[in-house]
Amino acid sequence: MTATQNPERTDARTVTLSIDAMGGDRGPSAVIDGLALSAEKNPDIRFLVHGPAAELEQLIARKRGLAERCTVRDAAGVVSMEDKPSQVMRHGKGTSMFSAIDAVRNGEADVCVSCGNTGALMALSMVRLRKLPGVNRPAIAVLWPSRNPMGFNVMLDVGADIRADEEDLLQYALMGASYARNGLDLARPRIGLLNVGTEEHKGRAEMKAAHDLIEANAEAGNFDFVGFVEGGDIPSDKVDVIVTDGFTGNIALKTGEGTASLVRSLLKEAFEYSFLSKIAALLALTSLKRLQKRIDPRRVNGGVFLGLNGTVVKSHGSADSTGVSAAVKLAFQLAQSGFTNKLAARVASAATLAQDARNTNDN
Amino acid sequence: MTATQNPERTDARTVTLSIDAMGGDRGPSAVIDGLALSAEKNPDIRFLVHGPAAELEQLIARKRGLAERCTVRDAAGVVSMEDKPSQVMRHGKGTSMFSAIDAVRNGEADVCVSCGNTGALMALSMVRLRKLPGVNRPAIAVLWPSRNPMGFNVMLDVGADIRADEEDLLQYALMGASYARNGLDLARPRIGLLNVGTEEHKGRAEMKAAHDLIEANAEAGNFDFVGFVEGGDIPSDKVDVIVTDGFTGNIALKTGEGTASLVRSLLKEAFEYSFLSKIAALLALTSLKRLQKRIDPRRVNGGVFLGLNGTVVKSHGSADSTGVSAAVKLAFQLAQSGFTNKLAARVASAATLAQDARNTNDN
Repeated sequence: MTATQNPERTDARTVTLSIDAMGGDRGPSAVIDGLALSAEKNPDIRFLVHGPAAELEQLIARKRGLAERCTVRDAAGVVSMEDKPSQVMRHGKGTSMFSAIDAVRNGEADVCVSCGNTGALMALSMVRLRKLPGVNRPAIAVLWPSRNPMGFNVMLDVGADIRADEEDLLQYALMGASYARNGLDLARPRIGLLNVGTEEHKGRAEMKAAHDLIEANAEAGNFDFVGFVEGGDIPSDKVDVIVTDGFTGNIALKTGEGTASLVRSLLKEAFEYSFLSKIAALLALTSLKRLQKRIDPRRVNGGVFLGLNGTVVKSHGSADSTGVSAAVKLAFQLAQSGFTNKLAARVASAATLAQDARNTNDN
Repeated sequence: MTATQNPERTDARTVTLSIDAMGGDRGPSAVIDGLALSAEKNPDIRFLVHGPAAELEQLIARKRGLAERCTVRDAAGVVSMEDKPSQVMRHGKGTSMFSAIDAVRNGEADVCVSCGNTGALMALSMVRLRKLPGVNRPAIAVLWPSRNPMGFNVMLDVGADIRADEEDLLQYALMGASYARNGLDLARPRIGLLNVGTEEHKGRAEMKAAHDLIEANAEAGNFDFVGFVEGGDIPSDKVDVIVTDGFTGNIALKTGEGTASLVRSLLKEAFEYSFLSKIAALLALTSLKRLQKRIDPRRVNGGVFLGLNGTVVKSHGSADSTGVSAAVKLAFQLAQSGFTNKLAARVASAATLAQDARNTNDN
């Protein structure tokens, strides 16, 4: 609200996002096209765009009105999909990914968006942004099309780490609840723990421990705990946030995507089967487009890294301009709600509370 | 081929299936209706039906021609969906489930089919049929709609056990390959190990151990090993059998079912949206039915218990007559191919080979 010298920050509502323009499967042009789509729709976004300056400036200049919303930061290096995270962690300096994350670290931008290599992005984010005090393992959260009024559920972790103990799962519950409050506008999210059955005695012993720990923290964490949920409940309306380890979550996410994609292509085949079915498809076009829009993975694009001093949105590597624009929209929303600080405060207070709860249990 | 006194065994092609008529969500009438459907289509099936005799005989009498294909075995007790497996294991005698499994144990029937409580069915099957020599953990295998020419892939374990070490995963590979040969008629199935990435360094350390063990046994087990596959590959055409532990497999299965069901209901909503879309839906009816048939979970109904001295097919608890009939068809096919004996021989020879392979590795 106070006056400032920075011309990009004249309006308190303006949000600056840091964009890694490189490393996606479709190259920087898909990214710049996505930024242009978002800039058109939303006058409050500014971009810090990282990558080879000459190339980016040329792409940006092609889009009317985009240049005055972008600041290009030259970075010659590109992290490829094949690069190993451990190598990028050591030698990543000078890449567009490193530069994009550092802009969040330095406070120049609120949220970072990248279409690059997930493992490398997480590794660099851990090194440059550092974990929040009280968080042992950061997590990646995604939005999952569901029967809920908002149309989405949150699921985490979908692959930041391949294992999680009960303390980690509690952190995921707290971070997921905070994300649902800020990203889906749910005052008191319902949290479920993914398991092979909903009865309390089912599943591995560590699941039972996590169940009890999350239950004990529901009141303090300002969420409702619905207990165990099954795979079939992920797209349901009986839960808002699904908590699981990164191995299981990654497999569930990809299985869901694969199944939806199979149904889509079988639907297409079914309509191409005969002359009559082709006619029917033409007539049904609006209905089918409505469906497509609802389950289009490009429109729910963006895994959010939670548990770091700063927020990073991972867009699909194969994202086209629509996908990039969806990730940018999500990043804007999180930045505007002050999500990073709220999450940090929530995790910090919860860490103390969890400690208290455990001490009480011990007595 | 030899003459016999048993009037039910006059034809060598005749197959007798043991049916647990109780314990499904829709009661015995859905089961008997399913048997009637199968009996009509297939003259070579006979049924040993277990449950309260008076009730079953009445239901069977209503279906023309079914009585002469069925022998009813009176069993007053019913295992409910709420019963705990451990209790059923101790006190299950006298139930229709126990009686149905024992008919396979006694050699009166080739395969058992039940819609009842999965945990109890597995527990009773373990106790009555016993594990095959060389098998540590039995598994449940399902058929998964896929882009393969057969239209299905095999996945196991989907929930017999909640954990599996590398030896177990090797057994699953061998049993899954045998199932694909006999159930899907694939001479040399392609086996994949479910993981969070396809690169060899990805995932938990135990996954790497299982990878190497399965790879070493591919030649002896008469299958191709395609290495790690991801959740998105489950419905793909790059693999025929997906191997995983029962925790991950169960969550993947239910996530896939839940996703397909969400897409189906969104599709329905899309077509009910407006007057025009309703007209389009009418015109597209044949196409939609073709799609429905392809992904209808009732038509791929039947989890098969592998690794026991006898084969048990678990039908969905909520199966209607179409679902029961699909499970019966699968049971018939497995019985006719002599699957139980082939699987036993394969596992026995592989256990020896695996031992050899390990000894070689140690040297």
